[in-house]
Amino acid sequence: MEEIGFLGLGIMGKAMAMNLLRHGFKVTVWNRTLSRCDELVEHGATIGETPAAVIKKCKYTIAMLSDPTAALSVVFEQGGVLEQISSGKGYIDMSTVDAETSSKISEAITSKGGSFIEAPVSGSKKPAEDGQLVILAAGDEALYEEALPAFDVLGKKSFFLGQVGNGAKMKLVVNMIMGSMMNAFSEGLVLADKSGLSPQTLLDVLDLGAIANPMFKMKGPSMVNSSYSPAFPLKHQQKDMRLALALGDENSVPMPVAAAANEAFKKARSMGLGDLDFSAVHETVKSGKSSS
Amino acid sequence: MEEIGFLGLGIMGKAMAMNLLRHGFKVTVWNRTLSRCDELVEHGATIGETPAAVIKKCKYTIAMLSDPTAALSVVFEQGGVLEQISSGKGYIDMSTVDAETSSKISEAITSKGGSFIEAPVSGSKKPAEDGQLVILAAGDEALYEEALPAFDVLGKKSFFLGQVGNGAKMKLVVNMIMGSMMNAFSEGLVLADKSGLSPQTLLDVLDLGAIANPMFKMKGPSMVNSSYSPAFPLKHQQKDMRLALALGDENSVPMPVAAAANEAFKKARSMGLGDLDFSAVHETVKSGKSSS
Amino acid sequence: MEEIGFLGLGIMGKAMAMNLLRHGFKVTVWNRTLSRCDELVEHGATIGETPAAVIKKCKYTIAMLSDPTAALSVVFEQGGVLEQISSGKGYIDMSTVDAETSSKISEAITSKGGSFIEAPVSGSKKPAEDGQLVILAAGDEALYEEALPAFDVLGKKSFFLGQVGNGAKMKLVVNMIMGSMMNAFSEGLVLADKSGLSPQTLLDVLDLGAIANPMFKMKGPSMVNSSYSPAFPLKHQQKDMRLALALGDENSVPMPVAAAANEAFKKARSMGLGDLDFSAVHETVKSGKSSS
Amino acid sequence: MEEIGFLGLGIMGKAMAMNLLRHGFKVTVWNRTLSRCDELVEHGATIGETPAAVIKKCKYTIAMLSDPTAALSVVFEQGGVLEQISSGKGYIDMSTVDAETSSKISEAITSKGGSFIEAPVSGSKKPAEDGQLVILAAGDEALYEEALPAFDVLGKKSFFLGQVGNGAKMKLVVNMIMGSMMNAFSEGLVLADKSGLSPQTLLDVLDLGAIANPMFKMKGPSMVNSSYSPAFPLKHQQKDMRLALALGDENSVPMPVAAAANEAFKKARSMGLGDLDFSAVHETVKSGKSSS
Repeated sequence: MEEIGFLGLGIMGKAMAMNLLRHGFKVTVWNRTLSRCDELVEHGATIGETPAAVIKKCKYTIAMLSDPTAALSVVFEQGGVLEQISSGKGYIDMSTVDAETSSKISEAITSKGGSFIEAPVSGSKKPAEDGQLVILAAGDEALYEEALPAFDVLGKKSFFLGQVGNGAKMKLVVNMIMGSMMNAFSEGLVLADKSGLSPQTLLDVLDLGAIANPMFKMKGPSMVNSSYSPAFPLKHQQKDMRLALALGDENSVPMPVAAAANEAFKKARSMGLGDLDFSAVHETVKSGKSSS
Repeated sequence: MEEIGFLGLGIMGKAMAMNLLRHGFKVTVWNRTLSRCDELVEHGATIGETPAAVIKKCKYTIAMLSDPTAALSVVFEQGGVLEQISSGKGYIDMSTVDAETSSKISEAITSKGGSFIEAPVSGSKKPAEDGQLVILAAGDEALYEEALPAFDVLGKKSFFLGQVGNGAKMKLVVNMIMGSMMNAFSEGLVLADKSGLSPQTLLDVLDLGAIANPMFKMKGPSMVNSSYSPAFPLKHQQKDMRLALALGDENSVPMPVAAAANEAFKKARSMGLGDLDFSAVHETVKSGKSSS
Repeated sequence: MEEIGFLGLGIMGKAMAMNLLRHGFKVTVWNRTLSRCDELVEHGATIGETPAAVIKKCKYTIAMLSDPTAALSVVFEQGGVLEQISSGKGYIDMSTVDAETSSKISEAITSKGGSFIEAPVSGSKKPAEDGQLVILAAGDEALYEEALPAFDVLGKKSFFLGQVGNGAKMKLVVNMIMGSMMNAFSEGLVLADKSGLSPQTLLDVLDLGAIANPMFKMKGPSMVNSSYSPAFPLKHQQKDMRLALALGDENSVPMPVAAAANEAFKKARSMGLGDLDFSAVHETVKSGKSSS
Repeated sequence: MEEIGFLGLGIMGKAMAMNLLRHGFKVTVWNRTLSRCDELVEHGATIGETPAAVIKKCKYTIAMLSDPTAALSVVFEQGGVLEQISSGKGYIDMSTVDAETSSKISEAITSKGGSFIEAPVSGSKKPAEDGQLVILAAGDEALYEEALPAFDVLGKKSFFLGQVGNGAKMKLVVNMIMGSMMNAFSEGLVLADKSGLSPQTLLDVLDLGAIANPMFKMKGPSMVNSSYSPAFPLKHQQKDMRLALALGDENSVPMPVAAAANEAFKKARSMGLGDLDFSAVHETVKSGKSSS
């Protein structure tokens, strides 16, 4: 089995790389903060000293970075991907970034002869750990086929969506809907509570109806307890809302509900909740102080 | 088996009464437009000439009316429920109404010695036909227990929520979340389409993720085809959003996403879409004319 | 000069009654909390023991009450207006109430033979003190003409708007625009501050441009200092937003900006700011804690 | 008197350059579509063949371009500003652009030894014609002082706001407030009309109250007649809303009212109204078809 490179070992990246190791892939990993690599090395991973070193060693390399800035740095900086990418090598960026960032990376990689796909995922920590992500790939179709064995381990389903940019866009659309839903859910939980209804009964009722969904089931009980351990940090959700709204702006799509949801996430950030789970937007709906 | 009364044979009421008949209940029905009774009579129902006549004949009577005005009329008008309700008789209002309307009806019924529960449902035409509603009952607990055999036929689950008003409130909370979600979904479908993505693929991706839910699955394909056959009319959804927002207003709960969704439903009403399915809010997100 | 009755001596009512006294009108006043009458008595007012007593004594009576509940109580309660209103007597309700409340009062007064106008005002404490209100009268045109000398003292301009309800509606439309503007202003002040600009310079720039207006000029400096001494209490502004939105709902007018502004006022209420000036909505835009 | 350069003769630029000519300045103009220069030549202007040619000839040059793209092109393209800018020459960009664009231009100009100020204006066509703009300058203070005689002709007041970027930001804050107010105003006009009130009377009432402002007075009558001759094109207003929201996003400032207003402007663009005056957002509030 070929060696796979893996750049970026945050919450998501670590779970994904671990999954590849568990399924017998040989993986060379790199992370800016080196200590994040330790647990993976214990499970058999090799360390690459720079992104370039990983690229040099592997036929294709997966990246999972926290935001557009990080995704660009890893490619363009000294010791970055570009220094070693070349014909016959593939680069798969699974970070959630905007279409423009993805295009920049794509152009840089392909101009060096490398092949590129963007492949952002739907799903956060738990699905990453369980290999249950949904993978939204776009770009070089041959590289997509080459990476399918890895995608089959990382996700329950992968889609090939055509030209570079489409994966990022699909991801943004899904996350935008999710962000609006989370706000609707938070508003409902607080409204129930303030109206003298049991939020727990609301969860039970919701779970039986037409809008029952895994997110409500998974997040609801902890939200009722004001517990927001970060599976998907709020500041990243807000970034996705912003990027989705920007995409809507380019295409003259009015999205008043997403816009309202985005402002609530911004309110949450202004309250210092950006590093908690995105369900912490719940706090913006609650009373600031005693109600009058 | 006792005779059950049934008042109101709209989309929902007809499906529910039919279900009772199919499961062997004896049912006496009334509807303002008499011709709506025909199909039920073919399946064994008896006709009552007025709400009062139905009440007189039956130990308990279920009502399923389109809005607060209709729910009040049936009780208070000449030939209405109040003329015959008395000790030992029960009245079960399954319409979706505001808490104030429900309270008025409750007070009137109980002041005549009757027992009352409100029991609004979660679910629209299809679940009504399939006996898969979720029933949110509140009021007289003895009447609730008496009606359980009927509730077991009409719904997959019933909750007893305490004092009168709580059923109405729970229903509003659920429908508010649903209305916001429908807007988020519509915005996502249009954003995908305008951004060069396949709305059908979006439906597939959504169905695999953390926010997969029956409503998206059921409504999505017809929305993609701009088809909005009314299971739950938009004007009724907007009414529920309005009532939920009013409940939030009473309790100082800020609900910016629900408020934005409500305005979109109002926009849809101003476009003449009030009698279509509530998924027709999708049309408010699309371009009015050619985009510039 | 005829005796004028005056019911309700809150912030607004007191300033208005005082103005009438200063301009030589004989005024009989009533207030639920009697001590509020003292200052007026010092300036020559007579006290009526009940609303009915005031009505009995005066050819026409002006009421300025805090909300629909208070406006209804004064008319319908024991010792209320209805007990003494009769043919030849006029009742002028200058409170800001919804159209429905105004109609109820109108019907009650006219069914007793009295004449009625609603005459809500535009303007808060300062314009009330200075006799610079704008008066939005509707109802009995003869009573309007009779009251013109008083209106000329209380306001800088009065409009006769036709049938009862139109005054209330016009007031709501104006206050809705005002409430949205106050939110826009608050957002701008915080955005300037957080972006490294001087809020005071923003006030100077605004005051020179196309959107310069007395409200920004009057409220801006105190808002910059987080000072919200109540000229127009936030909870009353929020009530007006709610009533305006309800009017829009009846008429299928989508008002997404007013809806967003209303939610911000509700957020402010949930933070315990309901009794401060409506400019305190400014606090909802600021950071909850340290920003992240 | 020194020769002043002027780049960009759109609605605003033409009025401004004409003003300079009328007040005795010698002006060399350039516009991408050359025919726009004719009227200015008749009034004494000289034509420069390229931006570079204008820069070469003049001690300082003013630019007034339609958007960030145009502002960047004029500087960086072949025959652009950079080819001739040098120590001792000044460049004053009065276009409304985002802070990032302004910074790019500033860096390019100053790296060539030139001095730079950004100086966006508050005010549209009419104030431009009347020399009544408000000028928001930031950057090189010496150049600001040198340009003061021109600013005194173009505007009624100029502010020096410190470092480059602050002019752009101040402009965005003002335009954001203006855009939200225009939406509030539109909602009010439609609400009045649909509620049976005269929109013209609403304009009269507004003009007497605390929120009276020149924009309502100037735009109101034409909006009532659904006339939207472009003084400030809607697509440019929407661009400013977008940029202001982006600035708020960077600084964690929740701006729910501005966000709702922005979506309404986007809706207007999706209806093909982008080239009309920004007051055409009024059309988004009206009924799409007959109301139901």
